[in-house]
Amino acid sequence: MISLAEKGNILKESEKKLAVASTHEKNIALKEVAHSIDQSREFILKANSLDVENARLSGMKEGLVDRLMLDHGRIDGIIESLYTVIKLPDPIWKSDRVWTLENGLTISKMTVPLGVIGIVYESRPNVTVDAFGLALKSGNAILLRGSSTAIHSNVALVKAIKEGLQKTEIPEGVVEFINDTDRDLVLEMLKSNDFLDLVIPRGSGALIDFVVKNATVPTLQTGEGNCHVYIDDTANLHDGVKIVVNAKTQRVGVCNACETLLVNRKVAKEFLPMAYEALKDKVELRADEETREVIPAKSATEEDWATEFLDFILAIKVVEDVDEAIDHINKYGTKHSESIITETLGNALKFQREVDASTVYVNASTRFTDGGEFGFGAEMGISTQKTHARGPVGLEQLVTNKYLVMGQGQTRK
Amino acid sequence: MISLAEKGNILKESEKKLAVASTHEKNIALKEVAHSIDQSREFILKANSLDVENARLSGMKEGLVDRLMLDHGRIDGIIESLYTVIKLPDPIWKSDRVWTLENGLTISKMTVPLGVIGIVYESRPNVTVDAFGLALKSGNAILLRGSSTAIHSNVALVKAIKEGLQKTEIPEGVVEFINDTDRDLVLEMLKSNDFLDLVIPRGSGALIDFVVKNATVPTLQTGEGNCHVYIDDTANLHDGVKIVVNAKTQRVGVCNACETLLVNRKVAKEFLPMAYEALKDKVELRADEETREVIPAKSATEEDWATEFLDFILAIKVVEDVDEAIDHINKYGTKHSESIITETLGNALKFQREVDASTVYVNASTRFTDGGEFGFGAEMGISTQKTHARGPVGLEQLVTNKYLVMGQGQTRK
Repeated sequence: MISLAEKGNILKESEKKLAVASTHEKNIALKEVAHSIDQSREFILKANSLDVENARLSGMKEGLVDRLMLDHGRIDGIIESLYTVIKLPDPIWKSDRVWTLENGLTISKMTVPLGVIGIVYESRPNVTVDAFGLALKSGNAILLRGSSTAIHSNVALVKAIKEGLQKTEIPEGVVEFINDTDRDLVLEMLKSNDFLDLVIPRGSGALIDFVVKNATVPTLQTGEGNCHVYIDDTANLHDGVKIVVNAKTQRVGVCNACETLLVNRKVAKEFLPMAYEALKDKVELRADEETREVIPAKSATEEDWATEFLDFILAIKVVEDVDEAIDHINKYGTKHSESIITETLGNALKFQREVDASTVYVNASTRFTDGGEFGFGAEMGISTQKTHARGPVGLEQLVTNKYLVMGQGQTRK
Repeated sequence: MISLAEKGNILKESEKKLAVASTHEKNIALKEVAHSIDQSREFILKANSLDVENARLSGMKEGLVDRLMLDHGRIDGIIESLYTVIKLPDPIWKSDRVWTLENGLTISKMTVPLGVIGIVYESRPNVTVDAFGLALKSGNAILLRGSSTAIHSNVALVKAIKEGLQKTEIPEGVVEFINDTDRDLVLEMLKSNDFLDLVIPRGSGALIDFVVKNATVPTLQTGEGNCHVYIDDTANLHDGVKIVVNAKTQRVGVCNACETLLVNRKVAKEFLPMAYEALKDKVELRADEETREVIPAKSATEEDWATEFLDFILAIKVVEDVDEAIDHINKYGTKHSESIITETLGNALKFQREVDASTVYVNASTRFTDGGEFGFGAEMGISTQKTHARGPVGLEQLVTNKYLVMGQGQTRK
């Protein structure tokens, strides 16, 4: 078996060619990979059924088994997502800043690939192909480390990717897979500063925490979302109900779903019954005492304010004003997506400025924080850290820059 | 003594006010700090003389003692650098990207402060004030951890800074100093993800390595510069000599100085004697065999190619063509600043595209990689990493972004 260091060398050498490949060459490669996956359907599905069987034998919950399972429809989806990436503009070797110094030097800040990206992820095998597609289009080589539960599916998918690349100008070594579920090897990967430029963890809070705490390579945290909707005293209450229902229930297992509803005291008696009617059949409510004087709900604990339920559960709290709402959000939130429903300009501006989060909404659902919705076309995840990239991570966030300086013999005085 | 966690809380709370302070308030604060330092000259110089005395007693080399020492002229310099920052445009709450989605949502990508920045640095006390000034103007609180050798100077400077801030709207808690030289406390600082958003090491390679290897907080590596000048076969040789002399000798102890000269074989016999004449009195030359057939030089070792001399020493190697030059640079370089001297368009473009470095020059000295020279006004250092910021780190690199989304009741379909 090839060692991690050898894989690192292959990735670095292959990335040199990918970094200077034309957009046409990269798109051809993505098409060949899509074709190869299409041709390898039976092989991939057979490998996947082995993973599914092992998962059931080990007692995995059916909800999780469903995330792991592939069928023809899902393979169609994987192929479609490659075509989405083909259609996106190439983010490499562009500039939005060129300037000339007094001494005549012209500086261009150009976009260039990061280099080699590592990704540590769980369960869903489509991540293998999605992450590869985004990396390739942005000129980055990628080292994949999936979970042991999806190992057969991932090996089959990577084989199909490599077979596709073999028909193109892009070396197959731009993608490597760690076919080993040894934890020590992940640790080695996280400390491979000599060949890895970035590591992205995708999965549970525990996985992200493990990566961030152990990596010496820079990481991009695509973290939890404990998101809030705050109903201000001048809110359009009908819009408020519609937005809370959407933010909470349109899809519950996602990071941009609403987990806590904050309601201004002045409108609590009017708004809470409206919200209750709209939510009660589907959602378990956990509320503070003041809310429970108006509508039926379980009693909320301190822990509920800090929890990303990812479920049909909503915490509710009555607050004095926009300041108390902002304080609550900045104390318990995860800096992901936060929304105020208000008709008061000053409160909208205050909330936008003072809430510390990647995305702050006025009069809209938190569910829009997404690379696709933002118009980025596809995303590697949603960053909840402040360095490098914050919010949806699309192709434009998978780059770094290089300053080109054009001179005519200039020296420094 | 206040614990690190308590300092973290003070910094976080103080930063909330700083983050939304107006440019006017921040500039007034910087002026008051400059005034306070001016008023505290005797106190600062007395503290500094204690550090200098201790350094000499402990046998510190005079070159290093000189970096530590303050006098009235150097305090003038510290004050001037605060006025430079006052004149720079405020980097906060600006946008170069506002767009509207089909559903009517308008998204603005705004600049916001990172939050709390930590800096771990060595020796020179002016870094204390420079780093504080850049952090304050960019809305960031700062935790300073200087070296034990400058402890009295730094304590005096931080006292003066805080006294200045007390006269303003900006809380003095936006700057805190670790008045303790315990290494365990640095380790604790490097793992303080709950209140630190970024750590910047400034100093020796060993310090940077220690920080990068131990931090779980994101780091910004302001690293070594093993920079090259490559003389191509069509180079204007007179410009080439002028640029090599400037890049090597204009200032030797800096990261953008040239450490290795690469010369195309076709012009080696003509160029090397010209370079030798210009360098021989000042610079020790360490060269490969082919160079030594043309000019006198010591024999270069493998280690020389990889060394940042920071001294009047230059390694020289003859190469076949631009490809060999690029390979050599990508193998031994530190991705800092690289220059090609050529009149051939294709080679200039190839070098720009394929050399992996923060700044790539055509026909100019590597010495221009600098926040001041680039027009950024001031800099926190020069980043040699690819994530977050690459190249000179000025005010515009000390920010992150927040997406503001303005709606009228939109929900996700």
